[in-house]
Amino acid sequence: MSDQSEEPRRYTAAQLEDFITRAFVAVGMGQGDAGKIAALMADADLNGSDGHGIFRLPPYIKRIGEGGLNLKPNIRIERERSGMALVDGDNAQGHLVMSFCAETAIEKAKETGVAWVGAHHSNHAGPANLYAKMPLAHNMIGLYVAVGNANHLPPWGGTDMLLSTNPIAAAIPAMDEPPVVLDMATTVAAYGKVKMAAQKGEQMPVGWMVDKEGNPLTDPNKSSDGFLLPIGGPKGSGLSLIFGLLAGTLNGAAFGPDVVDFNADYKTVTNTGQFIIAIDVAAFMDVEAFKRNVDVMVRLIKASPTMPGFDEVLLPGETSRRKREDYTANGIPMGQGLYDALAKLASEIGIEMLD
Amino acid sequence: MSDQSEEPRRYTAAQLEDFITRAFVAVGMGQGDAGKIAALMADADLNGSDGHGIFRLPPYIKRIGEGGLNLKPNIRIERERSGMALVDGDNAQGHLVMSFCAETAIEKAKETGVAWVGAHHSNHAGPANLYAKMPLAHNMIGLYVAVGNANHLPPWGGTDMLLSTNPIAAAIPAMDEPPVVLDMATTVAAYGKVKMAAQKGEQMPVGWMVDKEGNPLTDPNKSSDGFLLPIGGPKGSGLSLIFGLLAGTLNGAAFGPDVVDFNADYKTVTNTGQFIIAIDVAAFMDVEAFKRNVDVMVRLIKASPTMPGFDEVLLPGETSRRKREDYTANGIPMGQGLYDALAKLASEIGIEMLD
Repeated sequence: MSDQSEEPRRYTAAQLEDFITRAFVAVGMGQGDAGKIAALMADADLNGSDGHGIFRLPPYIKRIGEGGLNLKPNIRIERERSGMALVDGDNAQGHLVMSFCAETAIEKAKETGVAWVGAHHSNHAGPANLYAKMPLAHNMIGLYVAVGNANHLPPWGGTDMLLSTNPIAAAIPAMDEPPVVLDMATTVAAYGKVKMAAQKGEQMPVGWMVDKEGNPLTDPNKSSDGFLLPIGGPKGSGLSLIFGLLAGTLNGAAFGPDVVDFNADYKTVTNTGQFIIAIDVAAFMDVEAFKRNVDVMVRLIKASPTMPGFDEVLLPGETSRRKREDYTANGIPMGQGLYDALAKLASEIGIEMLD
Repeated sequence: MSDQSEEPRRYTAAQLEDFITRAFVAVGMGQGDAGKIAALMADADLNGSDGHGIFRLPPYIKRIGEGGLNLKPNIRIERERSGMALVDGDNAQGHLVMSFCAETAIEKAKETGVAWVGAHHSNHAGPANLYAKMPLAHNMIGLYVAVGNANHLPPWGGTDMLLSTNPIAAAIPAMDEPPVVLDMATTVAAYGKVKMAAQKGEQMPVGWMVDKEGNPLTDPNKSSDGFLLPIGGPKGSGLSLIFGLLAGTLNGAAFGPDVVDFNADYKTVTNTGQFIIAIDVAAFMDVEAFKRNVDVMVRLIKASPTMPGFDEVLLPGETSRRKREDYTANGIPMGQGLYDALAKLASEIGIEMLD
């Protein structure tokens, strides 16, 4: 199976979800929490967020093994006003904390129109779009911002790695068209993509990272010697700073030098910060009118003639949706490197490996 | 004075404010509204936002002359819940509408912690940072997003100019350090910078714009034949789309094909959309603790060693602040092109020109 020319193994989302659930339960997590996290992680894989799905299971389990995660958390609202809440994640897995935050924001926005819910003492929660999409079912728009869990970005012009990929996701409902779902790091490449390239044995394109002298860095195995590049130079660096101050500092969560590199330290509480905003469309205008207007814009964009070098114009989220259709029909592909890592994990924690 | 080697004329902010006020009053605006707008425009110039200050006066006056602006507006809350409001700008000058929105958001956020106020039937309001900074005096964070007033950005990979520079500004208070103030277009260059380059007779750097075949476009006089480039390719394009859906579509304001090119059409109601979010820091944590934490981060960033090619690391807003110090002490510089345009305007509307 290590022959690169062979087709990768493929698994259904249900198979991944079952495996992830068994893994978390095997290391002491309750069945309910394990199932919730597993469903979100498998959903990430189904969406093609392959740097944020089952790929993260071995480090998540390692953190639990080293005592860095609270398996019996009391996730709760610590402070609130009608339009906001600050949630104490009690060092739970981020998926649990941010699902709680999204639900809280949705409930509040039903009354107030817009609600902002931040968290501290959270942890890595997978891809940002998972939580931005949660308000969609309530005819709400979702926005989500997180402090990245490892600092690989210096402020523009500097070399101290004080910033992270600090991503933003936005999900906007449409009527007959699929929702518009943006999910982006403020860096040219998310660090998960660097890690994926290393696992696949691939080189990185020029423009993802530079070394400490500012020269292009393309070997993902040397990523710890270099820096990610922000989008638009000082603009991406500025966005990363603002997002970090809002998702980290404002929530009393780690930002800057307090950020624990979760790829190197599995013991220390990360005190991860994230926030979500839910916006009730009905507070602003007729929901159907809004959704039809989004449809119009989506169709105009799709109908645009293309620039030389492009076959079509893609909406934010469109590539993910196509992967989801493919993976739902044909299974989620898994490369040999990831398969081996999961087989090793299964053996270590004494559970049955995926078929 | 047209010799490029000569020092430009310099004016105090008070001189610009007085001239702008007289200009608006001369074409029929009430003294109170004229003074409010003039103060904000002169403040933009003092901040070095020279594409958004008195430079815009001739087109603003031209719009009034052609009947495209309402001089007796009834700016009012059209819909609201506790955490949000939708404001009808009644086709007033954007500075008046967005000042009203900022005040409304601040008042609401005192109760709800976070408040989101959007506007439709607004107009161009100058630099985004003006409004993002308004909550600072209340120990609040401000965020502001606008739909640009001319579409010069196609969706990534396409050639239909459906998007604009759709900028975002954020202002975050600090304790002993100045606030962190980000103000950025989602394009590499704001279109105002292209217009400034044309007026100054300068070429644009490669990377600001491309022609319809995707080749670099550097002559600002040919800007109408080309496209602005988004930051980070599909990421900046995606941000511009999301910001447009939030500031335009959600507010019932123009977005996409409905956007009126205010550089070409001075008659049609622009129905400009913008929104502001005010976040009361005290709802999340002790205000002084927050501000001190921002200070810490600001100082760490300033203390970072620099990358080769950089003399220092600049915070968002730092260049503007230095210009403000310079311009406050020495006056705001004005190039010959802008001087001539204002002299022509003064003559046309029968007011005394700046000394």
